Amino acid sequence: MLGAMARVSQAHLDARRRQILDGASVCFARNGFHATSVQDVLKEVDLSAGAVHRYFSGKEELIAAIVGEVLGQVREAFEEESRHVPPPPPDALVSSVLGRLLAARESLTVDGRPAFPRLIIQVWTETLRNEDLAALLYEGCTGVREAWSRIVVAYQDAGMMRADVPPDHVARTMIAAVLGFLVQQSLFGPAPVEVLRDGLRALMSVSPPLSGA
Amino acid sequence: MLGAMARVSQAHLDARRRQILDGASVCFARNGFHATSVQDVLKEVDLSAGAVHRYFSGKEELIAAIVGEVLGQVREAFEEESRHVPPPPPDALVSSVLGRLLAARESLTVDGRPAFPRLIIQVWTETLRNEDLAALLYEGCTGVREAWSRIVVAYQDAGMMRADVPPDHVARTMIAAVLGFLVQQSLFGPAPVEVLRDGLRALMSVSPPLSGA
Repeated sequence: MLGAMARVSQAHLDARRRQILDGASVCFARNGFHATSVQDVLKEVDLSAGAVHRYFSGKEELIAAIVGEVLGQVREAFEEESRHVPPPPPDALVSSVLGRLLAARESLTVDGRPAFPRLIIQVWTETLRNEDLAALLYEGCTGVREAWSRIVVAYQDAGMMRADVPPDHVARTMIAAVLGFLVQQSLFGPAPVEVLRDGLRALMSVSPPLSGA
Repeated sequence: MLGAMARVSQAHLDARRRQILDGASVCFARNGFHATSVQDVLKEVDLSAGAVHRYFSGKEELIAAIVGEVLGQVREAFEEESRHVPPPPPDALVSSVLGRLLAARESLTVDGRPAFPRLIIQVWTETLRNEDLAALLYEGCTGVREAWSRIVVAYQDAGMMRADVPPDHVARTMIAAVLGFLVQQSLFGPAPVEVLRDGLRALMSVSPPLSGA
């Protein structure tokens, strides 16, 4: 009986935490971190300062939680994909991971458009002047790069990809394609992940330059 | 004689205009457009308001000139590359165009790092709230996408790339990789364009998925 009550209570706490993070994400995506006050977030989620304070001490903690959650999900998705031997080819892998990431956030919108790509750009801008956030992002991105690099090594081991290119360069390039795709969505509106999947698929079909590496 | 004088004068005007654009680029890269005043730009270039006003009416015109110049150079570079039949493969083409773009701006720095990638992120953020800039960027990016698409068609016509993928999807993906690479430089420091070239080269070597398109 006590256990059941504790579970309900935890579910309630989780839902409330989710509600706050989602509301803050929308605020930050809309106006950026700098121009968003805790008051704006309270208004967005329709909660009192005290209710929010039970979860987050302030804007900095909200930002860190949002960024940390995204990076954690990306890392998890990669760990899942890397359990396949060999892993799915880049076109399938990227569209699967990015597709899930976007789908999990499609209910969050700003001016009728997905908030997530816009949020990402605001995070980058804030990172340029917030050293703590920069460190958090650097650490998280290093984790993603390492996960990607392990997948590249698996491609190379399976003979799916030329082995004379440093795995980290491939990892950076694949991550760059995803980041840039999010930029395009933020600036020019949503596009299905199949656009990126098709583009990578076509790139995978290019004949290598005759002059070699 | 008059002709020679006019040429000298034009060279002087061009140099002055260059000096203003470069100084404004550094200011905008450092603090973003919103937080930069015309006064900041005057201080950076060490010119009077009157001297700058002869070239630009204000911040909006400076932004538009900077963005327009970058997009113009990218488009020009693509037109040059597309004169080769078939065009250079994606890895060579991207590193050539991006390498020239970065090299032309390597003297502009913020905190000892190249200013250009940082400037790009600030442009995106400003675009989220400045409709005129958004329209300018959209128009320019559409031009770049069309130029890239023509190159993709040339790849497909030459049998260098599978022909069942819409050229625009490939164009978007290639542009995404470049934009994301600039994001990485802005957040985590400079990296040689060879990183991106190698990554694309490795991607070009991947065996297609067995299940086909």
